[in-house]
Amino acid sequence: MAEYNPIPLVSAAEQFARLPGIGMKTAQRLAYFILNQPVEDVERFSSEILKARKSVHCCNVCQNFTDTEKCSICNDDKRDKSLICVVEAPKDVSAMERAGGFNGVYHVLHGLLSPMDNIGPNDIRIAELMKRLSGDVREVIMATNPTVEGETTSSYISRMIKPLGIKVTRLAYGLPAGSALEFADDVTLQRALENRNEL
Amino acid sequence: MAEYNPIPLVSAAEQFARLPGIGMKTAQRLAYFILNQPVEDVERFSSEILKARKSVHCCNVCQNFTDTEKCSICNDDKRDKSLICVVEAPKDVSAMERAGGFNGVYHVLHGLLSPMDNIGPNDIRIAELMKRLSGDVREVIMATNPTVEGETTSSYISRMIKPLGIKVTRLAYGLPAGSALEFADDVTLQRALENRNEL
Repeated sequence: MAEYNPIPLVSAAEQFARLPGIGMKTAQRLAYFILNQPVEDVERFSSEILKARKSVHCCNVCQNFTDTEKCSICNDDKRDKSLICVVEAPKDVSAMERAGGFNGVYHVLHGLLSPMDNIGPNDIRIAELMKRLSGDVREVIMATNPTVEGETTSSYISRMIKPLGIKVTRLAYGLPAGSALEFADDVTLQRALENRNEL
Repeated sequence: MAEYNPIPLVSAAEQFARLPGIGMKTAQRLAYFILNQPVEDVERFSSEILKARKSVHCCNVCQNFTDTEKCSICNDDKRDKSLICVVEAPKDVSAMERAGGFNGVYHVLHGLLSPMDNIGPNDIRIAELMKRLSGDVREVIMATNPTVEGETTSSYISRMIKPLGIKVTRLAYGLPAGSALEFADDVTLQRALENRNEL
């Protein structure tokens, strides 16, 4: 945005452009949008976002986001604490909970091992996971994404856990529901074949 | 976002989802992003946006956004005040200025006539334009978008201005630069033909 635009407008657009997936053009559109909203709405927008950043932190057990000391899942007596599902990020907890069918607890790594990006074991919450693996835990389910980094992280962690005598499992690979064989990539198809189930 | 997410996180996502073109999924992603940013960055984000809303208002001459009484274009002695380019929105001023080649001043309508949406002449800044049309103005260039609403607004305003003896013009229709005949729509091609220029 050039010099004929008021500086506060340019600054607001620059702030929007810092958000992921929002380019300068969209950021300008958002800045213009903000100018047309009632002041109270913009005040609420501004304060709610800052409040989220200030009040939300990581659960001191599972590392998922929470605004209380322990997150609502870790606090829930009905959840099975002996079953830990390890995921990359809080959004994966949302995905699992949305899907339903899991009644254990989570552990959020906040990242994946990635030697290319210089992310090692100490940069993600592996130590916090190891600390949780007392005698009560019977199974750790690795639910990192089926990518190179996800696989690396999953096998690294499983190698650390196995000596403790705790069962480590991995989410199944296979065809996504509702998909078609003809559109499945080779690796997916090979794995669906390898992991075929008896009917 | 469901009940296992902390309320401030859900609220932040809801605020992002109020922005145009941002659905609930992207809003959640933005809320997660915010939680991973340094507090100072989020404070700046939050305050710059609120500041833009509070300090930016409409220029009392051309109605474009400004944080001073008169905008920088209306204040510029080198701009030709006798030539007024009428546009729908502040973003159109940006587009014109970016393109260059115009040395007059602007008038921002902040909307277009649209009977379907119940937007009449009193809902956009037509009265403010008429007030500016003193003896000094020699030409008004209608630069509303080439849409039904843009055309309607353009011809409505030109009918109001013509009796004052001021020249009213309209941006040319034709083929966009760099385009191809085969992809031009019928109306564009017809108009490019009608308005052909002698070489």
